[in-house]
Amino acid sequence: MRDKLLGLLKNDFISGESLAKSLGISRTAVWKQVKSLEKLGYEIESVKNKGYRLISRPDTTIPEEISVDLSTKIIGKEIHYFEKIPSTNQFAKELTNKSVKDGTIVVSDVQTQGRGRKDRTWFSPKGGLWFSVVIYPNIQPRKSMMLTMAASLAVVDGIKTITGIVPRIKWPNDVLIKGKKVCGILTEIDAEPDRINFAIIGIGLNVNNILKSDLEKHATTLKIESGSNVYRVKLLRSILKSFDKSYENIKEGRYDDIRKSWQSYSQLIGKSVRICEGEITLEGTINDVDEDGALILKNDERTYRILSGDLEVLS
Amino acid sequence: MRDKLLGLLKNDFISGESLAKSLGISRTAVWKQVKSLEKLGYEIESVKNKGYRLISRPDTTIPEEISVDLSTKIIGKEIHYFEKIPSTNQFAKELTNKSVKDGTIVVSDVQTQGRGRKDRTWFSPKGGLWFSVVIYPNIQPRKSMMLTMAASLAVVDGIKTITGIVPRIKWPNDVLIKGKKVCGILTEIDAEPDRINFAIIGIGLNVNNILKSDLEKHATTLKIESGSNVYRVKLLRSILKSFDKSYENIKEGRYDDIRKSWQSYSQLIGKSVRICEGEITLEGTINDVDEDGALILKNDERTYRILSGDLEVLS
Repeated sequence: MRDKLLGLLKNDFISGESLAKSLGISRTAVWKQVKSLEKLGYEIESVKNKGYRLISRPDTTIPEEISVDLSTKIIGKEIHYFEKIPSTNQFAKELTNKSVKDGTIVVSDVQTQGRGRKDRTWFSPKGGLWFSVVIYPNIQPRKSMMLTMAASLAVVDGIKTITGIVPRIKWPNDVLIKGKKVCGILTEIDAEPDRINFAIIGIGLNVNNILKSDLEKHATTLKIESGSNVYRVKLLRSILKSFDKSYENIKEGRYDDIRKSWQSYSQLIGKSVRICEGEITLEGTINDVDEDGALILKNDERTYRILSGDLEVLS
Repeated sequence: MRDKLLGLLKNDFISGESLAKSLGISRTAVWKQVKSLEKLGYEIESVKNKGYRLISRPDTTIPEEISVDLSTKIIGKEIHYFEKIPSTNQFAKELTNKSVKDGTIVVSDVQTQGRGRKDRTWFSPKGGLWFSVVIYPNIQPRKSMMLTMAASLAVVDGIKTITGIVPRIKWPNDVLIKGKKVCGILTEIDAEPDRINFAIIGIGLNVNNILKSDLEKHATTLKIESGSNVYRVKLLRSILKSFDKSYENIKEGRYDDIRKSWQSYSQLIGKSVRICEGEITLEGTINDVDEDGALILKNDERTYRILSGDLEVLS
């Protein structure tokens, strides 16, 4: 009903009577629906004998807003929105116990137990974009890095489109602006050895939110970098659209475009790097990113194929 | 308490009084514990003025029985037993939401919703061995086939030790006797692209159970093949011991022994095979099993690396 009312409200006035007629409800019911939209942040002008008109939409990631002009094929056809939730990835995982659409989105204004890789805490206050995508990609577990790559590309695309800023991708799962982390991605899969049952891609993107003071050295937000508030819903839509295209490619076994775009934004090929994982530290030159998304690192001793670790670029 | 009482009962009589003393409970309480053991299938003789003695233990996969002489390092230190449960893999998965020991076992006499690969139903009536192992192997998802391999080897070892029958392994996850399926393995992982968070290995082994009539052509039980009832608890212990050794190797990155033993029981190298997966059918010769457990299939056109599919040996 709320959705239908939004579809009818325009910049020009429309009378309460014709709204009531179109929606098949009473004029009092129309008035109640208008109030509930105002609660969500919609600005609606109401003038006697003229009716209602929409002044402005809120920057809130409710399904009604995300869906406007969301021309995706798979991603975002089902949207779960929360004001506050422990973790969007956790909720998304629970959704998979029931039947849930491929490409379903879980988004929350605040996460109280947001997590990054290796169970690191992810601070998720109001103003950021914290969301998860549930997908059924029907690929092998070894290809799952491609999902993280596609997600980082989607975030890069979204940031470029909305702010004009060109970020860089830091292997394996971060997006940086001027060397500072603006986004982290946590891909989780449920699989058998030969196929993924489902994957959850969690994206945490610092937009208009504040940062914890101890993070300011290494992290940034789009608001800091662009100098003004960024329209979160538009940004989210842009990310979803880009991911939708990559996801279609992944489903059809086409990884090459993703790999090439990823390489151009990661700028790792030919770089000297140091990679630490647990007690192992490797130094060498990055020769390639292989078809599974692994880094091919070469040094005097031999060639390594690396899927995990903390990376530092030396030169 | 039940556990302690079992430790005290021997083939020779022990008086109710000394049992009561050792356990720090009343003689009536001893009698109640004895009754509860009898309910579980223990045969206990009770003679006035002599006391109690243990006549026989039941072939029931309760923790008290599985643990007897179970000289494993990691596997089976925590055991959850059920008379009936929908699915041991499902329960095992739920356990991982809380803290659960590496190597924890979930075993049930009956599964009402047993599952095989690709969500196929797995008929799990009384008399079989239906259990799952929860592990935290700290390996990459691409190595997860090694877990299935180690589990099939453990089942082969167990069957050989207890019945003398030498089964064969059918790639990717079955154990056969004379061409008929006696065991299926369902490995499920929860992972990030670069590491497994946890894995559940589900093992369904036809022991003394009946088979559905439509399965008799392609399936068999150890009872059919050996001609008599097989002691399930001993078999389970033997499987757990073998898996414990392989698991230690996997944790330390040693895959070669598993690969070699697996190859000797699968006898696939050099064979002409047909592999079907979805709409794709490939024919060729198996050249190798690589370090990730993938089959290397060669034909006139090229070499393929195969992780999934239904396999048929042609010659």
